[in-house]
Amino acid sequence: MRIALDAMGGDYAPGPIVQGACEAVDALPGIEVVLVGDRDKIEAELGAPAGRHASLKVFHCTQSVGMEEKPTEALRRKRDSSVVRCWELMAAREVDAIVSAGNTGAVVAAGLRTKLFLKGVKRPGIAIVFPSLRGPCVLLDVGANPSCKPEHLYQYGVMGSIYAHHILGVATPTIGLMNIGAEDIKGNELVRETHALFEASHLAGQYKGNVEGGDLHRGASDVVVCDGFVGNVVLKVCEGVLEMLLKTTAQEVLGRLNGERHLAQAAFNDLAQRYDYSEFGGAPLLGIDGICIICHGSSGSRAIRNALKVATTFANRQLNTLIVEQLQKTSSQAAVADR
Amino acid sequence: MRIALDAMGGDYAPGPIVQGACEAVDALPGIEVVLVGDRDKIEAELGAPAGRHASLKVFHCTQSVGMEEKPTEALRRKRDSSVVRCWELMAAREVDAIVSAGNTGAVVAAGLRTKLFLKGVKRPGIAIVFPSLRGPCVLLDVGANPSCKPEHLYQYGVMGSIYAHHILGVATPTIGLMNIGAEDIKGNELVRETHALFEASHLAGQYKGNVEGGDLHRGASDVVVCDGFVGNVVLKVCEGVLEMLLKTTAQEVLGRLNGERHLAQAAFNDLAQRYDYSEFGGAPLLGIDGICIICHGSSGSRAIRNALKVATTFANRQLNTLIVEQLQKTSSQAAVADR
Repeated sequence: MRIALDAMGGDYAPGPIVQGACEAVDALPGIEVVLVGDRDKIEAELGAPAGRHASLKVFHCTQSVGMEEKPTEALRRKRDSSVVRCWELMAAREVDAIVSAGNTGAVVAAGLRTKLFLKGVKRPGIAIVFPSLRGPCVLLDVGANPSCKPEHLYQYGVMGSIYAHHILGVATPTIGLMNIGAEDIKGNELVRETHALFEASHLAGQYKGNVEGGDLHRGASDVVVCDGFVGNVVLKVCEGVLEMLLKTTAQEVLGRLNGERHLAQAAFNDLAQRYDYSEFGGAPLLGIDGICIICHGSSGSRAIRNALKVATTFANRQLNTLIVEQLQKTSSQAAVADR
Repeated sequence: MRIALDAMGGDYAPGPIVQGACEAVDALPGIEVVLVGDRDKIEAELGAPAGRHASLKVFHCTQSVGMEEKPTEALRRKRDSSVVRCWELMAAREVDAIVSAGNTGAVVAAGLRTKLFLKGVKRPGIAIVFPSLRGPCVLLDVGANPSCKPEHLYQYGVMGSIYAHHILGVATPTIGLMNIGAEDIKGNELVRETHALFEASHLAGQYKGNVEGGDLHRGASDVVVCDGFVGNVVLKVCEGVLEMLLKTTAQEVLGRLNGERHLAQAAFNDLAQRYDYSEFGGAPLLGIDGICIICHGSSGSRAIRNALKVATTFANRQLNTLIVEQLQKTSSQAAVADR
């Protein structure tokens, strides 16, 4: 399996990116990583010409999109950027997957532009795994599709459920629809129509109906679907709350302790790592004909190694084949219903 | 000033509700609280006929809406419920304000049904005060209006800014538009059109443009506007995250300590109180011709007392007059622009 890794994407690129690639090829037999970016910088990190590593290749390009750059503008100007080249490699079937910790907006925009969608998929969506009191919970879409239609949300249910089963090991994932109350008539037109779609589908048994914001971290369902605007706000609000709470909690608690302060400090350090989004192994852009794993900008080598591993599991379990099959099942049901 | 207090609304009603009313009339000279609900139950809590308290009255009614009841259905069946009666008292100008810790959906639905809106206000919105790393931040709407138009969001900016100035004491509040990226072209149609409205208004100087979810708790702006669907999800997600984090953090830290465990426990107790939404003095439904303060269902007497106090400040500062003036300023500007 060949994976294109955006060597120039990320707050600390290319250092930890290249390092993560080295760790991954050592740990995962059978993968080949194509490091996409400035050859000189990459080889400086490798400490040797890439040719000496049988499972590492370099695909040279001259540009990179900065983390703070405006995606659409950057993509227009930078045709030879690492993120554009990664997608071109996948479109040409030179690689099976791409992994990037770069500017998320640019990675997604470049991907959507390729129209490299799976058969039957209307709009790809980004899935993120949240910690909850009852284990991991998959939320999607968190930003690829800010103007959703009911069918898009339904498809996120299909794809999120397959992801939760095969990547997180949930036997029969339950699916919830993010809403602002438990009543069926609540919310806006989008969620009311989506609710009806789920109820009428072959997923009705897995579908738990409406969930509210608070249910996410209480683990009320294994998968939660929402439009990309809501999901992106939720994701970033959570990062903000975590940051604030860990800071103020540590301050408050440590300030009260004397001799045992170092013990509490160690606990806070572990907690900060446990809830560090950059450790979660990346977020897949589901619905792409290929594999795209998006990592947090602050990803270290471990996060990159994890993301490369998720990409291989994604391929080995043939998630895309399963997604296409499930979506076909839905559309043939709809065809029967229409008769 | 007369305030109707929904004595039957709240997880522990009427106990702490009546208690809060007693504390408020002792502390705030010149207010009169009308306790709306079952006379026997209220007088049992008062420990004496209400007539003995000069500043406390009882308005008897026979029904109440449960915290888990479906709002629309409950309002249809329960014409003599405390929440319905509170709104009727305000519509008849028998009271200047209402305060309720009852079923939020029912309080809002009953209020919107009265169409008791301020001149110029298209849709009332609920404002909530969040703690941030830089002080309090007002977010609105958090659930009254799940299908917003650009003008609604603009009006939330006007009203939120007046609230932040007069209730929170922020000199010149900055206003942010909740979006999913800092680029102007980001987001959906609603936010792009709202952005243009703010830029062209007399609030342009206070308007900071797009903010992202993470900026809320970082305190990037004093007021953040969003549609009621997004705001409600955000509010509840935050409650869920806080609950999970305080639980897991306490578990992790306390588990590592020995002799100083009680010191850390005391700190966690204080933190739980600091971030307890029920302590925040209630959320105003802004845009109502009158005053409506909605309290958290789990409100204790202190929260009720705080909410009654906020209602009096709201009246004394004549916030509604200011809101109407500001909205008129906007519409006359728009009229000039249209010529």
